[in-house]
Amino acid sequence: MDHTQRKYSEYKAWLQPKSSLTPKALRIRADFDLDFIHQECRLGLNRLWGEIKESAAYTLQLKIDDGAHEAYSLTPLASGFEIAGGSKRGLLYGVYRFLNRLATGESIDQIHERSAPQVDYRIINHWDNMDGHIERGYAGQSFFFAHNQFDYDAERITDYARLMASIGINGICINNVNVNKVSAGLIAEPLLSDLADLAALFRPFGIRLMVSVHFDAPMIVGGLTTSDPLDAGVKEFWRAQSAVVYDKIPDFLGYVVKADSEFRGGPEAFGRTQADGANTIAAAVAPFGGLVFWRCFVYNCQQDWRDAQTDRPMAAYKHFQPLDGAFDQNVILQIKNGPVDFQTREPVSPLFSSLTNTHEAIEFQIAQEYTGQQIDLFSLAVQWEEILTTEVNKGKQLRGLFGHEITAVTAVTNTGNNMNWTGNTLAQCNLYAFGRIAWNPDLTAKELIREWIRITFETDEHGSQTIEAMLLQSRDIYENYTAPLGIGFMVNPSNHYGPNVDGYEFSHWGTYHRADFEAIGVDRTSKGTGFTTQYPESLQNMYDHIATCPEELLLFFHRVRYDYQMKDGRTLLQYIYDSHFEGAQQAEALLQSWETLENRVPQEAFYSVKERLKRQLRNAREWRDQVNTYFYRKSGIDDEKGRQIYR
Amino acid sequence: MDHTQRKYSEYKAWLQPKSSLTPKALRIRADFDLDFIHQECRLGLNRLWGEIKESAAYTLQLKIDDGAHEAYSLTPLASGFEIAGGSKRGLLYGVYRFLNRLATGESIDQIHERSAPQVDYRIINHWDNMDGHIERGYAGQSFFFAHNQFDYDAERITDYARLMASIGINGICINNVNVNKVSAGLIAEPLLSDLADLAALFRPFGIRLMVSVHFDAPMIVGGLTTSDPLDAGVKEFWRAQSAVVYDKIPDFLGYVVKADSEFRGGPEAFGRTQADGANTIAAAVAPFGGLVFWRCFVYNCQQDWRDAQTDRPMAAYKHFQPLDGAFDQNVILQIKNGPVDFQTREPVSPLFSSLTNTHEAIEFQIAQEYTGQQIDLFSLAVQWEEILTTEVNKGKQLRGLFGHEITAVTAVTNTGNNMNWTGNTLAQCNLYAFGRIAWNPDLTAKELIREWIRITFETDEHGSQTIEAMLLQSRDIYENYTAPLGIGFMVNPSNHYGPNVDGYEFSHWGTYHRADFEAIGVDRTSKGTGFTTQYPESLQNMYDHIATCPEELLLFFHRVRYDYQMKDGRTLLQYIYDSHFEGAQQAEALLQSWETLENRVPQEAFYSVKERLKRQLRNAREWRDQVNTYFYRKSGIDDEKGRQIYR
Repeated sequence: MDHTQRKYSEYKAWLQPKSSLTPKALRIRADFDLDFIHQECRLGLNRLWGEIKESAAYTLQLKIDDGAHEAYSLTPLASGFEIAGGSKRGLLYGVYRFLNRLATGESIDQIHERSAPQVDYRIINHWDNMDGHIERGYAGQSFFFAHNQFDYDAERITDYARLMASIGINGICINNVNVNKVSAGLIAEPLLSDLADLAALFRPFGIRLMVSVHFDAPMIVGGLTTSDPLDAGVKEFWRAQSAVVYDKIPDFLGYVVKADSEFRGGPEAFGRTQADGANTIAAAVAPFGGLVFWRCFVYNCQQDWRDAQTDRPMAAYKHFQPLDGAFDQNVILQIKNGPVDFQTREPVSPLFSSLTNTHEAIEFQIAQEYTGQQIDLFSLAVQWEEILTTEVNKGKQLRGLFGHEITAVTAVTNTGNNMNWTGNTLAQCNLYAFGRIAWNPDLTAKELIREWIRITFETDEHGSQTIEAMLLQSRDIYENYTAPLGIGFMVNPSNHYGPNVDGYEFSHWGTYHRADFEAIGVDRTSKGTGFTTQYPESLQNMYDHIATCPEELLLFFHRVRYDYQMKDGRTLLQYIYDSHFEGAQQAEALLQSWETLENRVPQEAFYSVKERLKRQLRNAREWRDQVNTYFYRKSGIDDEKGRQIYR
Repeated sequence: MDHTQRKYSEYKAWLQPKSSLTPKALRIRADFDLDFIHQECRLGLNRLWGEIKESAAYTLQLKIDDGAHEAYSLTPLASGFEIAGGSKRGLLYGVYRFLNRLATGESIDQIHERSAPQVDYRIINHWDNMDGHIERGYAGQSFFFAHNQFDYDAERITDYARLMASIGINGICINNVNVNKVSAGLIAEPLLSDLADLAALFRPFGIRLMVSVHFDAPMIVGGLTTSDPLDAGVKEFWRAQSAVVYDKIPDFLGYVVKADSEFRGGPEAFGRTQADGANTIAAAVAPFGGLVFWRCFVYNCQQDWRDAQTDRPMAAYKHFQPLDGAFDQNVILQIKNGPVDFQTREPVSPLFSSLTNTHEAIEFQIAQEYTGQQIDLFSLAVQWEEILTTEVNKGKQLRGLFGHEITAVTAVTNTGNNMNWTGNTLAQCNLYAFGRIAWNPDLTAKELIREWIRITFETDEHGSQTIEAMLLQSRDIYENYTAPLGIGFMVNPSNHYGPNVDGYEFSHWGTYHRADFEAIGVDRTSKGTGFTTQYPESLQNMYDHIATCPEELLLFFHRVRYDYQMKDGRTLLQYIYDSHFEGAQQAEALLQSWETLENRVPQEAFYSVKERLKRQLRNAREWRDQVNTYFYRKSGIDDEKGRQIYR
């Protein structure tokens, strides 16, 4: 495939040519040590405009200024334009931003922007296994690995690095947090040299690599008989092995660790704390400026469903809040946005409001594990905006922690070796939006979606508005036909796609709704499991009381009778029926909307998205009918509007 | 391992040495052409007694008489004993029967028996895949295949052939009915020569081999573009390929075919009938005396759960009853005992009472797919006795069809390469019982179980009675804590072990209980789906009316309210609660009973069975709690006795 041809290709994602733009004759000027950035700028203009006419009359100046490290400024000049960065990386971001703004159709002399990221680390996590399979991957196989070795197309890696740098990503962890015996070896030869080769492809784009390491690497890789983080031999293993890594890759960003979680080893197996575990590894990389991203996804995944005392969302706080302040400076606690697991709707993790003396990363999931698996449309930007603007303490929103407690933003990516990277072409928008909000959490979903549409497609007003409306509504639509009101986890076990209302109800994963003939939900208030007490008092009060609890989280926090009266007067049960009938209708409307775009968006995108919207509609109807039937069979209460509920 | 040592070994199954018996000095006499049988007799006596003292004073005469082909007689003489058979095979059966009666401790001069089997074909079906995995296997891997080729220990095969011949088995199908592209090649070189080698190991024991063939073999093996059974090229393929098979294995018994079933190809794909399909293949083997066992497990496995008209148990009758009389003489329709799929409790398939002009095989499942997977104790003899004595027409019991409409008895075996053959040592009893009832369906479960215990173990009276009681109760116990009253299929999808009340409720497999807030079950009467109309009128009437329907099948035939009053006055719901509490208690009692047998049964059997009984108890408690909680949550009705039901 020749990706240099100046026409739309799904592979180019948001870096598309723009045949409708008027090219400008100009001359690019940059110091000789900025060659790579100069070249990226030229390639970008060529892509957008075609071959550039050189003109001494208009100068595009690239330069390093004295701004903050990753900051850039875009400034129109009398007879030219200046892109300045506080460092090469800042300048590179400036160039990409300049190109992207041009791509939206803005006139060059209207582009005026100064920007710097609020957090230092904007990270993509790949859950790629070295056998090529991607855990929770919905866009093909890994483009890093196959057959338990590195196996990649260097050109594709470069294209990927450019895509990621163009949205401000500066760190990528290439392997699954569920590390196995093969990938445990990434920090040692022979894999380490291959890792160094890969790092070299990302380096010019300002992207530093990370790997997920196995907590038991001292045993698996080092041949020791323990992984006890306070054991001298274990400490020495991590120190020496990390020295080897940094000798090969001096700008290596560090390690991601999933410990004491879902059958992974961890410090608790040795009677040590999470801090003991994290600090031992962190001490090993500290001399090299390395980081340890230590995941907080620690809970009892062997719960007995009969045990109504244990409440899974409380686990992370219980494990980590008492250790606030005990972690080394180069440890960053990686906290999932919510206390459960990337559900369609959950509250913000109480750890964000309770850790004040610890570096934190918020972890999002771009991969649509529970949100439609890149078959069903789900604009995560909408969810993220809501999360980022959630109050976490004394009126402060979550995004207000960025650059303070929160020093990193990470996400599990939705990419694979499909030619369009993300399976569903519209899911590219989620990847794009992630980079942008990691850079600037004040961006709204609407802004992000508009921006992405404008730089990705050349369509008409109807096209832009249709796609924008589809994306903006997509999350509510998906929520309507799936699990209601924050209850979560009504999915098929293991694969997590499609309805299975009781699928996790008697399992050991700790996710129960306990629906019976008259009520549903777990009382997580201070009078129930006490989960709400993990929040600051004002939030606790809000969540504790059903009248003040945000209604969209009603079933996350409360056990509620089916005849409970919602704010608009409907019963809870009627709300559930209504939202499911509506959601399936909305899914049908999504397909109909998309069908109006034939010949308005590129054919390859049109057909691949249409095929997925058809599958989404089947899925939505299945959800509607199974959920409605489930509640009818439990409650014996009919739909007030007499619509079809199967018996 | 040396299996010749004269001590108990699980590997020897029911062919154990007996240190408590008093050996008799004797001389064996047989014509020279009976060498193999003579040797089997001597080996058997050596096993039971140790080295035999030769004595001319007592003669054990082996001879062929003019009895029926497979008949034998055991006759004490003045100064000796005569074993006669109507053929070598009959004589061999006589020898094994003689040895088994000796093994029970009977005195030789009390052994007097004439016997002949009621059906000509007593068949074991292996669901072994050629990669070594056994579908629904709970006793290890295949002892025929590994890595997609034949891979066996000839000594083990000989031991297996002896075990099977000793209970009268005369045909074995070695591969899974779900034939794949590899096993489709068993009827062609290079695999055919290997098959012939294996057949040679079984031949002395009177056992003829079969293979499951792929209906699409004309395409897969023959390279044709169709498998249409009326296509001349297809007919020629089957003819020519079968000639090749019979050239290599002249006594080959024939083929098993699973067609138009669960994603397998079949004649209906070509607009042909099941008879068209079966007869084309049957015609190809008829010249060689071969048979085609054509399975009747044909149903829509892509049903929409919303579709309440389609009723899976009706499918086999609909497909096959109209074709009664249309099948060639060497076609045997292989019909599962019940209309669904080897559930703990179901009625007898209506095909048995409705096919009068067709050869039939009844298919049992010794492998405990839905009956505890050789972890939970389940004596199938109890179930089989009940099935065989079920009325099928005008007062006639199912076993009354043996030797008439039913000309073959088949079963999916429970064996694998575990050293004790069956995983659970007590599951050997099911294998033994199958062979015996296939020979003589008038044997009761109690007789079979006693016989098996006495020839397998040397234990005391407490030991025998305990094991007997455990086995006799095992089926009721399992039924008590699992799916109630014939409702079936409340198991975990795919693996079919453990509870999942709604596990198949919204699936495409056609097995629904449709439990709601007030009732459970599918109305299969003539006023419901009409399934009962597939039975003769008197049976239809019996099943149609809730008052006359056997109560243990209540929920198979009727949709019943939870407050329905059972015969003993309890409500249906209270019956369900009671049986589940009782079943879990009984499972505990099973373990306690077995624990009294330490030092009364061989250690290897004691510990392996004990470990399984512990797992059974855990399983039973899980079933009890999930089922009770499920119905409490649906109905809101508490246990009358106030026992713990989790909310």
